[in-house]
Amino acid sequence: MKYTHHNNELNIKNIGQEVYLKGWAAKVRNLGGLIFIDLRDRFGLTQLVVKPENPFYDIALKIRNEFVLEAQGKVIERENKNKNINTGEIEVEVSKLTILNTAENPPIIVSDDTDALEDTRLKYRYLDLRRPVMQNFLIKRHQITQAIRSVLVDEGFYELETPILGKSTPEGARDYLVPSRIFPGTFYALPQSPQIYKQLFMVAGMEKYFQVARCFRDEDLRADRQPEFTQIDIEQSFVDQEDIIPLVEKVLVKTFKKVLNVDVPQPFARMSYQKALELYGSDKPDMRYEMLISDYTYLNQIELPLFNGKDAIRGITLENGSTITRKRIDQLALLVKKNHGEALAYIKYSENQYTGSVAKFLSEEQLNSLKLKENNMLFIVPGQFSNVSSALGALRIELANEFKMIQDQVYKFLWVVDWPLLEYNEEENSFSAMHHPFTSPVDAEVLRNNPKDAMAKAYDIVLNGYEIGGGSIRIHNQEVQRLMFDTLGLTEADITNRFGFFVDALKYGTPPHGGLALGLDRVVMLMTGTTNIKDVVAFPKTQSAKDMMMQAPSDVDQKQLDELNIKVGK
Amino acid sequence: MKYTHHNNELNIKNIGQEVYLKGWAAKVRNLGGLIFIDLRDRFGLTQLVVKPENPFYDIALKIRNEFVLEAQGKVIERENKNKNINTGEIEVEVSKLTILNTAENPPIIVSDDTDALEDTRLKYRYLDLRRPVMQNFLIKRHQITQAIRSVLVDEGFYELETPILGKSTPEGARDYLVPSRIFPGTFYALPQSPQIYKQLFMVAGMEKYFQVARCFRDEDLRADRQPEFTQIDIEQSFVDQEDIIPLVEKVLVKTFKKVLNVDVPQPFARMSYQKALELYGSDKPDMRYEMLISDYTYLNQIELPLFNGKDAIRGITLENGSTITRKRIDQLALLVKKNHGEALAYIKYSENQYTGSVAKFLSEEQLNSLKLKENNMLFIVPGQFSNVSSALGALRIELANEFKMIQDQVYKFLWVVDWPLLEYNEEENSFSAMHHPFTSPVDAEVLRNNPKDAMAKAYDIVLNGYEIGGGSIRIHNQEVQRLMFDTLGLTEADITNRFGFFVDALKYGTPPHGGLALGLDRVVMLMTGTTNIKDVVAFPKTQSAKDMMMQAPSDVDQKQLDELNIKVGK
Repeated sequence: MKYTHHNNELNIKNIGQEVYLKGWAAKVRNLGGLIFIDLRDRFGLTQLVVKPENPFYDIALKIRNEFVLEAQGKVIERENKNKNINTGEIEVEVSKLTILNTAENPPIIVSDDTDALEDTRLKYRYLDLRRPVMQNFLIKRHQITQAIRSVLVDEGFYELETPILGKSTPEGARDYLVPSRIFPGTFYALPQSPQIYKQLFMVAGMEKYFQVARCFRDEDLRADRQPEFTQIDIEQSFVDQEDIIPLVEKVLVKTFKKVLNVDVPQPFARMSYQKALELYGSDKPDMRYEMLISDYTYLNQIELPLFNGKDAIRGITLENGSTITRKRIDQLALLVKKNHGEALAYIKYSENQYTGSVAKFLSEEQLNSLKLKENNMLFIVPGQFSNVSSALGALRIELANEFKMIQDQVYKFLWVVDWPLLEYNEEENSFSAMHHPFTSPVDAEVLRNNPKDAMAKAYDIVLNGYEIGGGSIRIHNQEVQRLMFDTLGLTEADITNRFGFFVDALKYGTPPHGGLALGLDRVVMLMTGTTNIKDVVAFPKTQSAKDMMMQAPSDVDQKQLDELNIKVGK
Repeated sequence: MKYTHHNNELNIKNIGQEVYLKGWAAKVRNLGGLIFIDLRDRFGLTQLVVKPENPFYDIALKIRNEFVLEAQGKVIERENKNKNINTGEIEVEVSKLTILNTAENPPIIVSDDTDALEDTRLKYRYLDLRRPVMQNFLIKRHQITQAIRSVLVDEGFYELETPILGKSTPEGARDYLVPSRIFPGTFYALPQSPQIYKQLFMVAGMEKYFQVARCFRDEDLRADRQPEFTQIDIEQSFVDQEDIIPLVEKVLVKTFKKVLNVDVPQPFARMSYQKALELYGSDKPDMRYEMLISDYTYLNQIELPLFNGKDAIRGITLENGSTITRKRIDQLALLVKKNHGEALAYIKYSENQYTGSVAKFLSEEQLNSLKLKENNMLFIVPGQFSNVSSALGALRIELANEFKMIQDQVYKFLWVVDWPLLEYNEEENSFSAMHHPFTSPVDAEVLRNNPKDAMAKAYDIVLNGYEIGGGSIRIHNQEVQRLMFDTLGLTEADITNRFGFFVDALKYGTPPHGGLALGLDRVVMLMTGTTNIKDVVAFPKTQSAKDMMMQAPSDVDQKQLDELNIKVGK
């Protein structure tokens, strides 16, 4: 490279040096004849100065924002120093200036602050990504990916690729399909995860596998979902949970140190699934703040119909919550109902007085048993345990945000362990897998005889209230795998059609194995402090899975459809 | 990990140690009561021995090939040493033995030599991959990928991901399509390469990008092609050809050193496209052997109708080729015709005699001008230059193989440079891009005024006769890009529909940029010495793009098609 420096490098020590720079004109100012150009590259800014007597002055006059430039010159000390940037003490007096390309006035402002609407930013993504704040998201993503990879490679894992053109095995989410031209009427499916492939690598004796794997789900998107996403997919043989958990901790601890210079203490906290629901009303508790759920089910003895005979009565106490308004409480009650809660009751304790919707129905002894302190507000939700939990879990998050209990740049990891294997659907009298049908039961006999009680060798890793990864020890015994499919209601024909080759594979000497998948997009989102998953994806899609820049999906030629032997329409 | 060693590690220095091993029973022998088990893992073999008095003897008796085992024991010196393996001097006297899983008799033999047919191997890929020779292909692939990546990361490149769900822009190969559920009747396309995305990264100011990128082409497959393949995709801003070429050389030199411990001399040889056709009859010459093409066009003056007035008369001289039979020459003539040659003439020189099909039509002076040596056989093809070249190119390869001129484990790199920008189709009076429509012309004015003469800033990297990568400096000027599309016959509407956003992007300050893509599968194939691309892909597809193991593509539920608003049929 003929260029001598990046635009973040020059400082007072370089004064007098001849340098050769390149970049974009981030800002051009003409101050009393002197032309100042902030030259930007992916590393930073350097100020160029061109005096009227300079033979390149006429060229400098033509320069507009976002022109692409090449400049030679001498580093000199700046009169008005800018302490906010690395190069703020110097400027470069230009001796040669070349316009490499011109630029029309860009439709969005290329700086960290932009007032452009999201649709405009997505349409002109190549300009949106030119903003330093956006470049930083992608650079961090790169660094995080490399850091994770380097730990896994050092641990002896092989990075192996699995197909994108796979087979449709419809369960869970909807598959993206790809029509086959050679076998008309048949389809490939894009993988929802490389789960089966990675288990086959274990059957194949590869022992330690990982992949930065693209996964696809044709689901209606939520704010933190994309139709295609990336997971760090890990699998290892001859292991149990106590091998995978420390491995993943090592990956995360080293990555946080390397990329953010943050020391995360090890081992990470652990909590059972049941405990997480009881205390946090969530299977992915945010551990950055307390406000735990307490049990008041003993109040189901009182006359009040709202409480009487209820399965569970539970609540959270908001410190300094006594000032919360009646109107706000009504809004919170709506939130509780949206999250399956029957109702929201509350008791306020202030100046030695208990007030609130249900205070008068409780005896003094009962009120004292609540252990409220001055200015506490207790929110209570009665009903079925699981509904109460989810309602209080949502309420807890809402209040924590509202009352600013959440510290920035604090990283609280948690392993959620001891999961049930199955979820029971009362209406349909059917089971579904809590994780996926390849998760090993703790005890296959319990699965056989009493599936509702079967526990799983599964573990989720949670960071700041987000599930960033899930894993399990897998079933490696063919009979247990069949029992699992059977319990899930798959017929023999279903098993053969969808998973025949996989069940077959298990019988030729499959080692015990397990693993985990980390959601890379979420990890990057949390490590960069953004709440918008689109910020950490180079070319994201909208919530209707549309690429605003390319205008995909799009019409295709009839010839293409004819070749694939498909047509549009029901 | 509770295991103390891999199965390639123990040797005479470990004698007396207690060890804990795991793996597969590669071979079980019962010799006069003593049971010997070759325990295999991904690193190698260790011999276990179980004596009749051992309490685990009954368990050992049950073990069959491919059982999964865990064994504790003491390292002892072996009586009959095996010099062929690392652990051949020792064995492990078992003190504890556990069967972790049983195995049915596998349908293919799990060892380097297998007599299984390819279809069977693909169906039971998870067993085929258990063979050490196959594991080695994937391990090498892993090592090669890491080595390439580490050079690029060290050089300041960011590894950035681009979408798999993109837009169909039909030119060149056929796209794989993905129906959109949300916008019925529209389709995504899987990328044939991330070409446009990587150029947009340059527009976005990322400056240095790479990706281990999955690419897709729905083409009828040849032996060395897969419907999905992986390329090391590289792009950089503010560069010309003389920046990209040394970068790629550095990547390859370091990778060959790290993975194969082979020193590749730098700089690599270079040759113009025109010279490559003239001397080797190929745009990807195999430089491991000579046998260059010579020009005998002056013979188009002689009376012989085969030669008279021909555009080109060219030939190659095979040393010690005088013994080649008449029958074989007839076969070679067929090969020549298959490769567009008009005819194959030959002249043999042996014992001071010229013989062969055309010798008698040449004067003594003309014969002497051929400069044949004893036992030389000169093969001559007349006709149009390009046809003559491709015919002689094919003949050259055929003869080099037949006469064993090609050394193993020799790596001859070559840059093919100075490419024409366009290919002219006389019949249709139309141009197509020699590389792709984003390749920069050397001189845009020549493209405008005399497109047939336009040269490209393009460069291909060739190894041992395989094109392993192609690259170019790209067009960064919007007007030139429009001129290029225009020359290729795209209407204004075509440009807007297919590339509108891209042409737009170019006008907002696009830096000069260029790059290259390496075909990873081919690189791995050449570095591991296999000629079957399937060997270096974990789960490959057949030539009809079928996954024999998963049975993909497959039927899908009618419900899935209904949701996508498509149906099968023309």
